[in-house]
Amino acid sequence: MGFAGTAVGWGLLDYKTEKWALLTKKGYQEQDLDPQTSVITKLKGVSVTQIRDLGNRLWDVADFVKPPQGENVFFLVTNFLVTPEQVQGRCPEHPSIPLASCWADEDCPEGEAGTHSHGIKTGQCVVFNGTHRTCEIRGWCPVESGTVPTKPLLVQAENFTLFIKNTITFHKFNFSKSNALETQDPTYFKRCRYDPSSSPSCPVFRIGDLVAAAGGVFEDLALLGGAVGIQVRWDCDLDAGGSDCRPHYSFQLQERSYNFRTATHWWEASGVEARSLLKLYGIRFDILVTGRAGKFALIPTTITLGTGAAWLGVITFLCDLLLLYVDGEAPFYWKTKYEEAKAPKVTTSPEQTEQASTPPCPAAQGP
Amino acid sequence: MGFAGTAVGWGLLDYKTEKWALLTKKGYQEQDLDPQTSVITKLKGVSVTQIRDLGNRLWDVADFVKPPQGENVFFLVTNFLVTPEQVQGRCPEHPSIPLASCWADEDCPEGEAGTHSHGIKTGQCVVFNGTHRTCEIRGWCPVESGTVPTKPLLVQAENFTLFIKNTITFHKFNFSKSNALETQDPTYFKRCRYDPSSSPSCPVFRIGDLVAAAGGVFEDLALLGGAVGIQVRWDCDLDAGGSDCRPHYSFQLQERSYNFRTATHWWEASGVEARSLLKLYGIRFDILVTGRAGKFALIPTTITLGTGAAWLGVITFLCDLLLLYVDGEAPFYWKTKYEEAKAPKVTTSPEQTEQASTPPCPAAQGP
Amino acid sequence: MGFAGTAVGWGLLDYKTEKWALLTKKGYQEQDLDPQTSVITKLKGVSVTQIRDLGNRLWDVADFVKPPQGENVFFLVTNFLVTPEQVQGRCPEHPSIPLASCWADEDCPEGEAGTHSHGIKTGQCVVFNGTHRTCEIRGWCPVESGTVPTKPLLVQAENFTLFIKNTITFHKFNFSKSNALETQDPTYFKRCRYDPSSSPSCPVFRIGDLVAAAGGVFEDLALLGGAVGIQVRWDCDLDAGGSDCRPHYSFQLQERSYNFRTATHWWEASGVEARSLLKLYGIRFDILVTGRAGKFALIPTTITLGTGAAWLGVITFLCDLLLLYVDGEAPFYWKTKYEEAKAPKVTTSPEQTEQASTPPCPAAQGP
Repeated sequence: MGFAGTAVGWGLLDYKTEKWALLTKKGYQEQDLDPQTSVITKLKGVSVTQIRDLGNRLWDVADFVKPPQGENVFFLVTNFLVTPEQVQGRCPEHPSIPLASCWADEDCPEGEAGTHSHGIKTGQCVVFNGTHRTCEIRGWCPVESGTVPTKPLLVQAENFTLFIKNTITFHKFNFSKSNALETQDPTYFKRCRYDPSSSPSCPVFRIGDLVAAAGGVFEDLALLGGAVGIQVRWDCDLDAGGSDCRPHYSFQLQERSYNFRTATHWWEASGVEARSLLKLYGIRFDILVTGRAGKFALIPTTITLGTGAAWLGVITFLCDLLLLYVDGEAPFYWKTKYEEAKAPKVTTSPEQTEQASTPPCPAAQGP
Repeated sequence: MGFAGTAVGWGLLDYKTEKWALLTKKGYQEQDLDPQTSVITKLKGVSVTQIRDLGNRLWDVADFVKPPQGENVFFLVTNFLVTPEQVQGRCPEHPSIPLASCWADEDCPEGEAGTHSHGIKTGQCVVFNGTHRTCEIRGWCPVESGTVPTKPLLVQAENFTLFIKNTITFHKFNFSKSNALETQDPTYFKRCRYDPSSSPSCPVFRIGDLVAAAGGVFEDLALLGGAVGIQVRWDCDLDAGGSDCRPHYSFQLQERSYNFRTATHWWEASGVEARSLLKLYGIRFDILVTGRAGKFALIPTTITLGTGAAWLGVITFLCDLLLLYVDGEAPFYWKTKYEEAKAPKVTTSPEQTEQASTPPCPAAQGP
Repeated sequence: MGFAGTAVGWGLLDYKTEKWALLTKKGYQEQDLDPQTSVITKLKGVSVTQIRDLGNRLWDVADFVKPPQGENVFFLVTNFLVTPEQVQGRCPEHPSIPLASCWADEDCPEGEAGTHSHGIKTGQCVVFNGTHRTCEIRGWCPVESGTVPTKPLLVQAENFTLFIKNTITFHKFNFSKSNALETQDPTYFKRCRYDPSSSPSCPVFRIGDLVAAAGGVFEDLALLGGAVGIQVRWDCDLDAGGSDCRPHYSFQLQERSYNFRTATHWWEASGVEARSLLKLYGIRFDILVTGRAGKFALIPTTITLGTGAAWLGVITFLCDLLLLYVDGEAPFYWKTKYEEAKAPKVTTSPEQTEQASTPPCPAAQGP
């Protein structure tokens, strides 16, 4: 009866596997796993900042979104360090740079330039704003001060809104859908806000909520920057007509600090090229769209069943083995199953023996 | 004879599945499904516009392609709304903005700023160009006029050409190929134009044709913008030596409206920061490269066959079931198939009965 | 004995396939094949150039990286051709442009503009710097000179360093890891350099080494530009706890020439819009992250085994065929295997015959 137990055990496993492959993994459906997607983003909001040497200044979307194209990866400026009027010249290096500090000119080999330095050393050791002595460099002067801002300048960015328009197309089933559901009300997208519970299908996200959902603290990210991933997942069962084919949004905090430098150049009246260097801190948003669609089709079903079906063969085979080799009654079953195939000629006898010793071929010696 | 019919039916299905898996899905090949691809794009063309306050002006590629890097996603400006000389100051809000209209100062709470507003309300209710009364704001003034352009300004963009250079590499088979076929004629790429029928392998596309192939009307897209997807599909059968491994281009209209804002900043003689705000309409091109390569290999073939092979077992099993349980003669076949395995001892009798009642184990009780 | 040989042969093949599917392809693991990845890049370095009409000038990261955001695709300027002061006007076309050369005004139809021309023809045939006669155009003047630079201007870029910060997340196993390993030493990332043998886990790459590893010659790429692909491959076996889950870097030279044009615009004192046109040559870096993670799971194992198991059925079936149709003793075996199922009624006789002629159903006619 142990055999029966085994058999039933195998049978169950087989059944479970089948069920898993068929239902959980939708083995009965033909799949389209690489849809074509298009993402367009649009930020809205204004923010006012009080900066020491730029005065009271209002920032709008044209100022704090880079690049402005509305692609699926973009950067929202929340903080910055500005070095207003740089021109090419000679000035002391910043002490924070490796090998910048010096006691005498010998410490500043002329022409040297480290990877992190702001320019080429002139060979002089000069005084850096009264306190330190650092090597003089030739480059954009004055050099950027290493001071890290203590409070974010565009803290209102928390209330900005991000509109994500995402269209997905499954060419295999030639089915296409957008996350911005049709609506009569023209002002709907100006009013609605995404909320997982109350309005999960509104594609307008408040930046603050978005960062919180990603597990971040807005103030921290606004101060030193960061990166947030937004995943839009479509899982479409087109057997149901695709009406339940809706995007699911999830948010991940990818980085806890993020900044980069950029500069705006111009020519001064004197014909000298000047630039104002900006070290921008902010939140980078990275929108990733993934999707799958499935539709019933005969052949995948057949294949999936086929894989599981294999087990029937194995079970049979295993039961045989158990009965023939393990069981106490084995010799008896053996005799019963493999009855000698009496051949007219004697020459066949070798075959019998050998066949009997060919496990992969049991059924071949049926009586 | 119904049984035979069933059996044959199952046999056919099995055969079809096999054929499908083997040939249609190239089950006999080892696959490389994620090639490494590189895309470089280059737009060519010039266009002249007659703008009210900028005069007769010529635009070339450095002006109307953003970003200029020649990546796989880029934007071709076809229309724009310019707000030439904005400076930070106080001015009436635009009436189209929610909550902008007012009758008295009470309607304009000081410091309020909606998501869509152009600035921070000052608390005053003022006159907007003679007609409306709107809240005064502090921000970039004057505010952008909401007027939508009626005809595209860079309509010649229809005749611009897009050169797509795409290299694909299948590391698994270390096979690499480019869509720009080698040619002796140095001016070939300056002359040729892609045409699905006559010259399907020329990688230079006329924008107008491209938009039409995507199912769009160029004038409409040029006016209010849009997004067009270009799919480059490689399907390479390397058993054939890869000579027929060529890209296939397909075009999809993804969006029917698209625009974004950007600004160029400068300092006026008076030391005041000014900007000219551009609302750019245009066509965003999104180039997606997908590819697969296959080469014969023994093991995948074995596996594919294996899956189908499973059915042989099932068919046998099903025929048994039919004969034993469904058919009118069932009892007779039952008796014939399962003949009692007479054991020397009586103790074995339970086994017989139970074995007989263990469907997964039929073959185990061969006579 | 030939049969036995075949059987054993099939058995071996089956075994090999199993082994391959199970071990090589990790068939016993559940897989996560599309991880979520985030890439942040940062270039460091300074370079000084001696340009004819811009004088001795220092370039830093804010000048030579485009776009500056630190995305996974970016461009490092190594060379450029500058056309300093262009204004809208009339000037002779460049002779290198198709249809630009002319003998008389008739050769220059007014209003014509080829795809490659710099502007709209005015209808005049004028002299181009003393040597040629070309059509006059209306556009940005003077036109760019077609001269290709002979030596790279920012050749020091070879010593710049690229810092790649890459975080990968496998949601299925909720496992996340970064390529920048935790370290006590704050200056570690300022000092270390990637080296496949000595320090394979330092994510700071020297541009020169990187280009060499890709199989390029830096001087050539720096002169006329190019594109280099950086592949970061994660192959994580989480059964081993993920401690050996480390990125592997590989580098490919994708393109041997690469350039694009961009312009900076400004308004001159006279109120005329001017621009300086830059034709930028440089190296485009394209960072691609791929990854898979696997963890043991019962059901995939069952399925994998199932596929292979199918062969047991096939082998049995094949041995039958051999014995029954091919072998010299076939008729004898046939008789032995298919013994007539004598039915009580005569009506059953058709069934027998037909069943005997139903190959897919052999076992159905067990004695």
